[in-house]
Amino acid sequence: MTANPPSRAQQIRGFLQQQGLLAWIAWRPDELLMLSGYFPFWGASLLICFADAEPILFVPQIEPRDHIPGGLRVREYPWGDLKCSDPYPVLVAAVGDELSKARAEGQRVGMNPSASRISLPIQAAEQIPMPEAFAMQLSALTAKPDARRHAAFADLYLRKTPEEIRAIRLANRVADVGLQVFFENAQSGIAEAEIAAAVESAIYRQIGHDGIFHSRGWAMVQSGPNSADAGRFNRSTGRHLENGDLVVIELAACVNGYWSDLTRTAAVGSPNMEVEQIFAVARDAQQSAVDGVRPGVSAGEIDALARDKIAARGLASFFTHHTGHHVGFRYHDPGFLILPGESAKLEPGMVLTIEPGVYVPEQGAGARIEDDVLVTESGHEVLSRIDGSMQA
Amino acid sequence: MTANPPSRAQQIRGFLQQQGLLAWIAWRPDELLMLSGYFPFWGASLLICFADAEPILFVPQIEPRDHIPGGLRVREYPWGDLKCSDPYPVLVAAVGDELSKARAEGQRVGMNPSASRISLPIQAAEQIPMPEAFAMQLSALTAKPDARRHAAFADLYLRKTPEEIRAIRLANRVADVGLQVFFENAQSGIAEAEIAAAVESAIYRQIGHDGIFHSRGWAMVQSGPNSADAGRFNRSTGRHLENGDLVVIELAACVNGYWSDLTRTAAVGSPNMEVEQIFAVARDAQQSAVDGVRPGVSAGEIDALARDKIAARGLASFFTHHTGHHVGFRYHDPGFLILPGESAKLEPGMVLTIEPGVYVPEQGAGARIEDDVLVTESGHEVLSRIDGSMQA
Repeated sequence: MTANPPSRAQQIRGFLQQQGLLAWIAWRPDELLMLSGYFPFWGASLLICFADAEPILFVPQIEPRDHIPGGLRVREYPWGDLKCSDPYPVLVAAVGDELSKARAEGQRVGMNPSASRISLPIQAAEQIPMPEAFAMQLSALTAKPDARRHAAFADLYLRKTPEEIRAIRLANRVADVGLQVFFENAQSGIAEAEIAAAVESAIYRQIGHDGIFHSRGWAMVQSGPNSADAGRFNRSTGRHLENGDLVVIELAACVNGYWSDLTRTAAVGSPNMEVEQIFAVARDAQQSAVDGVRPGVSAGEIDALARDKIAARGLASFFTHHTGHHVGFRYHDPGFLILPGESAKLEPGMVLTIEPGVYVPEQGAGARIEDDVLVTESGHEVLSRIDGSMQA
Repeated sequence: MTANPPSRAQQIRGFLQQQGLLAWIAWRPDELLMLSGYFPFWGASLLICFADAEPILFVPQIEPRDHIPGGLRVREYPWGDLKCSDPYPVLVAAVGDELSKARAEGQRVGMNPSASRISLPIQAAEQIPMPEAFAMQLSALTAKPDARRHAAFADLYLRKTPEEIRAIRLANRVADVGLQVFFENAQSGIAEAEIAAAVESAIYRQIGHDGIFHSRGWAMVQSGPNSADAGRFNRSTGRHLENGDLVVIELAACVNGYWSDLTRTAAVGSPNMEVEQIFAVARDAQQSAVDGVRPGVSAGEIDALARDKIAARGLASFFTHHTGHHVGFRYHDPGFLILPGESAKLEPGMVLTIEPGVYVPEQGAGARIEDDVLVTESGHEVLSRIDGSMQA
């Protein structure tokens, strides 16, 4: 038994103190989720975390209110083109007021200005609406960008709290429902897009069960020769599965804001020996890397566990990507990658994907198995329950 | 018969000449689609349009190549963490080289720096990866932001070419398949999320038919009391439909990059008279506004056609949003809204949504019917074939 890990609120307060900051402004959906547990609907909410007061959450008037967690002071700002054509100056003024009340002058207020690779909010059909002018107006209230500070902030994503781990486990549980549908449907004659559609549908239907208010999957199925592309991109085409195919599913799922990122490979009928070998090597490499996950091991060592297995079969040149990344608040969380030579060490509470793959165009076949692996005090926990061994 | 409208290439050249520009740099997925017909996979592609040369498209090495249209000079830039950890400086240098070759100095190169409300690329589970630093590096190669110029550029979205209209019509045709599934499933006892899942699934399955390489729907179903929220937000919950409910579906669909945005309302069993009235008024208002669409009419006049019908029944305060917006390259295209008092006039080739709604919390019911309406030379064409009248 070890001491309880620090709560999220303690971590954030520690970060602010260490940086000499009085407040932090957040508006990216994944930042809001990480800092407060709130997953925004429109992506137009804004959070101020204070060093010595409860956070304030600004939501547009049109935001649903039924999933806002406790412990937040909630403020509404106007929205809707009929009453207020440009709500952002109103919001910026309100943010400025709250900072003044807290005597937090600009130099002691931090913000991450980057809009890159943000998580999608619940309304996922469009990128978030915050305009450039808004970001510039907010910048006037905050300290200048500081690369070191932003790196320290990104570190807050790395170690998940027990509550967050439960939420990521639930995302894996929901994704498992989709993977089950994948294996049931990976049959000769079915189109890739039909399988992917059935998988996403099974995931969406989980809304309303187990406290799930948002559940969306992005399933990408590649079969036969298309599976050899799965190391460069993932999508579904109208190709119909054939006997002897390998079929790769890349599945991102977002449940209540928390993400899982899983890959499985199925065989249709009886692939030839060379193709079976591709699957076996990828599976073996993945199992080997997963088995090595424990605190104190470096990411580079984990990468080598997978990469060496593949190299030993003479297939090194067919594994062209990294072995893994952090996951949970986004499809791809910030933080170090599992890459050759990466010296960063695994710590309890981290959740990383382990996803080596082997893609051989000449054989018209590719295989990848990907799991989300929690680093525990004594080793690891694989969060999906769907076995990575060949099925169908 | 009238003269052929200018081609997209002619429009762009006209814009560059009018602005005194030699080149335009685009990287937002909807801009690439509008300027070149190319819908990017990763959202990390970049296009340079020249005043007097064929455009150049830069794609990351991991981009699929099978849907790149002709007439583009395609250049690859490195990607992938194993060979090149930061591809953006390489891309920026390559862009700079091409501009130098064309003798296009910064002041004569335009770019839209905003990242707000960008269309999602094919890989839709994550926002596009272009980092802030990349945008800043590009800015060094281009003229300073100029609000008037950006407004003139946004005008290019307004009038669709015949080819684009065919693509938007196809998106409506695919969405219709989803709407059919909606009406078949809008039955007592089924959960909102189950219906939405079935609709999205039917849309995804269209991949591989009729030249469709990408087809994704975002269906949001709200029933009974939840339908009264449909004017503020759209989502699906686990609520099971009951006799007497109105059920609203908001359906965004993206087919090969082109968007449709449709709403239908169904009745479950026999709603009471007040609830039936809500539907009837919304339907009447929508039909009235659609009927008024023709070249030369102002957006404000169209808005009044809908809004007056609702006001005449004493329900004005329950229609709280705009009547419509441009659609096609995005779920919500830039351009004027159909709003009270808006003086902008409709022109042939414009595609606008017409979507009045009536939402009455006291009755636990809301209704909206939304169509994508093409302005033709002589009047209009409703692009969906699924009638807006109550069904189920």
